[in-house]
Amino acid sequence: MSKINLSQVLEQLNWRAAIKVFDATKKISNEDWANIEEALILSPSSYGLQPWKFIVVTDQKIKEKLKPFSWNQSQITDCSHLLICLGKTELNENYVDHFIQASAEKKGLPVEKLQGYRNMIVADVINGERAKIIPEWATRQVYIALGNIMTVAAMVGVDTCPLEGIEPAQYDNVLGVNGSGYETRVACAFGYRSVNDVYSRQPKIRFSSDELLIRK
Amino acid sequence: MSKINLSQVLEQLNWRAAIKVFDATKKISNEDWANIEEALILSPSSYGLQPWKFIVVTDQKIKEKLKPFSWNQSQITDCSHLLICLGKTELNENYVDHFIQASAEKKGLPVEKLQGYRNMIVADVINGERAKIIPEWATRQVYIALGNIMTVAAMVGVDTCPLEGIEPAQYDNVLGVNGSGYETRVACAFGYRSVNDVYSRQPKIRFSSDELLIRK
Repeated sequence: MSKINLSQVLEQLNWRAAIKVFDATKKISNEDWANIEEALILSPSSYGLQPWKFIVVTDQKIKEKLKPFSWNQSQITDCSHLLICLGKTELNENYVDHFIQASAEKKGLPVEKLQGYRNMIVADVINGERAKIIPEWATRQVYIALGNIMTVAAMVGVDTCPLEGIEPAQYDNVLGVNGSGYETRVACAFGYRSVNDVYSRQPKIRFSSDELLIRK
Repeated sequence: MSKINLSQVLEQLNWRAAIKVFDATKKISNEDWANIEEALILSPSSYGLQPWKFIVVTDQKIKEKLKPFSWNQSQITDCSHLLICLGKTELNENYVDHFIQASAEKKGLPVEKLQGYRNMIVADVINGERAKIIPEWATRQVYIALGNIMTVAAMVGVDTCPLEGIEPAQYDNVLGVNGSGYETRVACAFGYRSVNDVYSRQPKIRFSSDELLIRK
């Protein structure tokens, strides 16, 4: 463990802003991006089920195709890497078994040893209350990943802009994921802010802790 | 800006685990917790609207009351700080105006200067497509905050356990937030792992990047 000072973390969180104007000439290095991908994969999810896929777009032609389905926001084409986060649309026992299989291999255990855990997951997400809201439950997990990766990027001085203003069905078409069992939920642009981005120099707007926090 | 190395960030993310057994004798210091609260308030949200409230429980009696509505998980009572994340159940123009007012004050601008921005937000979240899904949209924002704060805690060596296995309506009762316009969505326990927590010493289970990532 190699802890980071909270003051440094807060400095970086205060530096973070949803970037409106990226510097299109600045690209994230392959090495840095590989690490960001690794951090993304390490995102927490319920039971560790990872009900998501991520598409990373650097091809300018694909970005151009996505832009009209993104309120024409310039971040789509000016960013270095465009991340599209997809959520799983359904869960079945096969998927849980796939996860349990991967777990058994990683832990060096026979799969039978994990049957109790498997059955607990199945009782909740396949046969229980959560089964009724799988697409939305998966979307919530996607947003954990989004929250994680925006914070990771801020820590290391990489800019982001989360993008809810997109047309998911059109994204699915352009990206060719129709019928894959995964659908576009949200996007996030990565890169470096332009010196012309005035918004990121404005103060952050947050309600006071008196308004947002209750201590008991 | 005071950037952190990606390798250090990855080390901390690999150290993170959903802690099953907290050391009930170890408490987060007031100073560290104040900083964690600050980081929580800095969580990104759509338009910066912060459609959330957070309840921080340290009172052992309240934790005991919540435990039976949390699958009796020991983290509820053994953690140092129990965070309950609430999502807004509806949005109206008054709320947007409240946000715009806070923005104008922070930026030192007359509120009229932000009318365009106000009207864009209203067109989307009050009168547009997103208006139809406000409770869920707010929940997604809550999950961004959850993702952010779990990562922040991991950076600084504080343990967490996200808790979806709770009964939100019962939480609302115990916490006295019925009718407040906010409802419990998810909880997260904070503290320090016990030496007896075997799970956090097991390898992390993640599908491969080949399975989770598509590059275009």
